[in-house]
Amino acid sequence: MAATGTTDLPAAEIAKTARNASFTIKSLPGSARDLALDAIYDALAAYKDDILAANARDMRAAKELVAEGKLSQSLVKRLDLSRAGKYEDMLQGIKDVRALEDPVGKTTMATKLDDDLTLHRYTTPIGTLLIIFEARPEVIANISSLAIKSGNAAILKGGKESTHSFAAIAAVISEALSSTAIPPGAIQLVQSREAVKDLLDQDAYIDLVIPRGGNDLVRYIKSNTKIPVMGHADGLCATYLHSDAELSIAIDVVTDGKTDYPAACNATETLVVHSSVLATVLPGVVAALQANGVSVRCDADSLGALRAVPDSVLSSAGKAILQAATDEDFTTEFLDLVIAVKTVNSLQEAVAHINAHGSGHTDCIVTSSESAAEEFCRMVDSAGVYWNASTRFADGYRYGFGTEVGISTNKVHARGPVGLEGLMIYKYVVRGKGHTAAMYGSGGKKFLHEKIEF
Amino acid sequence: MAATGTTDLPAAEIAKTARNASFTIKSLPGSARDLALDAIYDALAAYKDDILAANARDMRAAKELVAEGKLSQSLVKRLDLSRAGKYEDMLQGIKDVRALEDPVGKTTMATKLDDDLTLHRYTTPIGTLLIIFEARPEVIANISSLAIKSGNAAILKGGKESTHSFAAIAAVISEALSSTAIPPGAIQLVQSREAVKDLLDQDAYIDLVIPRGGNDLVRYIKSNTKIPVMGHADGLCATYLHSDAELSIAIDVVTDGKTDYPAACNATETLVVHSSVLATVLPGVVAALQANGVSVRCDADSLGALRAVPDSVLSSAGKAILQAATDEDFTTEFLDLVIAVKTVNSLQEAVAHINAHGSGHTDCIVTSSESAAEEFCRMVDSAGVYWNASTRFADGYRYGFGTEVGISTNKVHARGPVGLEGLMIYKYVVRGKGHTAAMYGSGGKKFLHEKIEF
Repeated sequence: MAATGTTDLPAAEIAKTARNASFTIKSLPGSARDLALDAIYDALAAYKDDILAANARDMRAAKELVAEGKLSQSLVKRLDLSRAGKYEDMLQGIKDVRALEDPVGKTTMATKLDDDLTLHRYTTPIGTLLIIFEARPEVIANISSLAIKSGNAAILKGGKESTHSFAAIAAVISEALSSTAIPPGAIQLVQSREAVKDLLDQDAYIDLVIPRGGNDLVRYIKSNTKIPVMGHADGLCATYLHSDAELSIAIDVVTDGKTDYPAACNATETLVVHSSVLATVLPGVVAALQANGVSVRCDADSLGALRAVPDSVLSSAGKAILQAATDEDFTTEFLDLVIAVKTVNSLQEAVAHINAHGSGHTDCIVTSSESAAEEFCRMVDSAGVYWNASTRFADGYRYGFGTEVGISTNKVHARGPVGLEGLMIYKYVVRGKGHTAAMYGSGGKKFLHEKIEF
Repeated sequence: MAATGTTDLPAAEIAKTARNASFTIKSLPGSARDLALDAIYDALAAYKDDILAANARDMRAAKELVAEGKLSQSLVKRLDLSRAGKYEDMLQGIKDVRALEDPVGKTTMATKLDDDLTLHRYTTPIGTLLIIFEARPEVIANISSLAIKSGNAAILKGGKESTHSFAAIAAVISEALSSTAIPPGAIQLVQSREAVKDLLDQDAYIDLVIPRGGNDLVRYIKSNTKIPVMGHADGLCATYLHSDAELSIAIDVVTDGKTDYPAACNATETLVVHSSVLATVLPGVVAALQANGVSVRCDADSLGALRAVPDSVLSSAGKAILQAATDEDFTTEFLDLVIAVKTVNSLQEAVAHINAHGSGHTDCIVTSSESAAEEFCRMVDSAGVYWNASTRFADGYRYGFGTEVGISTNKVHARGPVGLEGLMIYKYVVRGKGHTAAMYGSGGKKFLHEKIEF
């Protein structure tokens, strides 16, 4: 591999090159974009060992920083590409995206405005994306495949923690694309540290910024750019145990939500519990969490109730390691084996707690009542609202999107796991025969506004 | 009318009140929202004289500022509610919006993930909107109706030029809504001058800002907020006369595009002309423009060609008043009876000029060739691309959206005229029976990802 894959041009050049490439890639047929995905897949499969070796170097450096207290353990977990199945999932994501329908040029609206005057709306790629991420080197493959499939140009800026992984993956992808119809500027991999601020100034050329990192990164970006930001911020997810929650479902859903991958944004951080099940359902859930190494931080009501149950329901050892929760625990994304327990007296109070303290990511109710579930799903103002299913399902792969560019907690454009659809916009095409606006309106012709079937 | 209709609370209070009201308005049935639209319609119709009297006061003040050179003539035109048909159009817009289908709670995706595990996507209101506008008092009625119909809360902040019109309309709307199910905080009308900066800081409560004003206002807002901005910026629209443009269509489309309402953002500002029709089609178009009082600013090629045609094609008086265009003329939104003429040698050159100089709003090709039209529509990167139809059609009413909150030149969320759809987002609902993410993936169960018909 001779190509370094990364670029060190000035930000304005990078952005201008990307915009020009975006005009080319958006005009390529779907087949040419699919061939490029094959090339990336084959190259990443062939160079797996090299890439994992580079990732191991990043991991060693990161672990040293953790030992010095300069880096969080959860970031190290996100950096690790050698975790069982992770590399294969990354590769499979490319194949899954390739298998999806071509999202470019689909008709999404058609109206007959008048005789010989029609309005159509067609999907088009957004144009130029800027993706800034901290760890998670697999993001490069995910985003590159989604960008190419959707006909967008992308600039990817990695963080210093993933320097070696990034350089290795970038080199492989650049070389793979060089033999395809994708113009070289369509996927640019930027590694210089200074570039972020300068790239954020390129609102003349860049159409969307997607930060993949912690809340601090997202807020920094939102404060320093005029480019729209698709925010992947906090994931402060809650699971609520309603008064009629079934014990086995509660245990399964809460344990999976908390322990399946605690460093993920869709992990459950808060357990909201109806006061009527503090002594019945909650103890079994807490015992299961503790058996999986989870520290449980309780508000006064739940702490009192748990300490009062017989040892046969929650062991004295289990009671002894319960902690008292602080107010801050209910607005903290632990990203670790820690959970906060909040007691409420009604479903409405649970909804209010979640809408006030959550991050609008994904929240779940465990209940046997369909009407309670539907009310919860209607009233909780989050991107994902679940009934008897783990918050960990909030994921582009699990939703059937192939993979995702991130999970948006924005309220505009795209919300929840963002796949191809979130990288598309549309244009309106009007076809007439010399029609003028002055012909219509007060005293003039009337519009037909008839729906055209498509 | 006792109610003043406007509020002067601190920005954080206004925003928090709006967010709380958004939870109520989004849970109201469509019928309750429609009744509120009836109430607004009836009240605005009943108080027309009072409102026009208030508008006349604003117009007098604005005209004095124009005389002192402190305000542009185009702003005065946008301020004027007494222009023939304008008030009736505003009222009709409310009725048109009411007649549209309820956009809340529609299913837009449904997937069977596995047995007893489903994923649905439902439309929901965005939440809380902040609309900031300079002139155009009819915006208050347009936005209020769209916000109510779509189940959103809205904060409207008017400019000082429309002080009296704003206060009068705000009072009428507030009084009308007080007898409906819409909570008082759902539509708040803010008039204090200091509030803009403070409101832009309320990203914890406000989900979307919609500026309705000039490019300076939009850029100021984008630089001073973390809230997503739906940009209604420049409208630098071009019409391109291809080598086979038909003279009568060219005259109709260009004249309407330039003169129907020159102060509008969808007015044609640039005339791009293929060199082969400089002496055949262009002179007739220029003569028609000049007959409508338009000043024509030509690049060297078009100026030379027009001066060389016989007086029978373009009068000597017409030739005498032609002006030479500067480079700046091709990036200027005149909003007045001025047009700039640019000569190109091919359709590709026309596309490149428009993509480089335009604002991505609306651009038109006049041609007899379907293939030329389709290439233009595919390659021009604008929200609207038209074939043989005036750029003035870029409008929510003309597109059949009832009315519009603005015309977006963004590349995300909503593009072109924005009606109800642009005020909606969605949420994902997953329904399971205790399903956990750990059950799936490497070695586990496979997802079905079957489309559910809806």
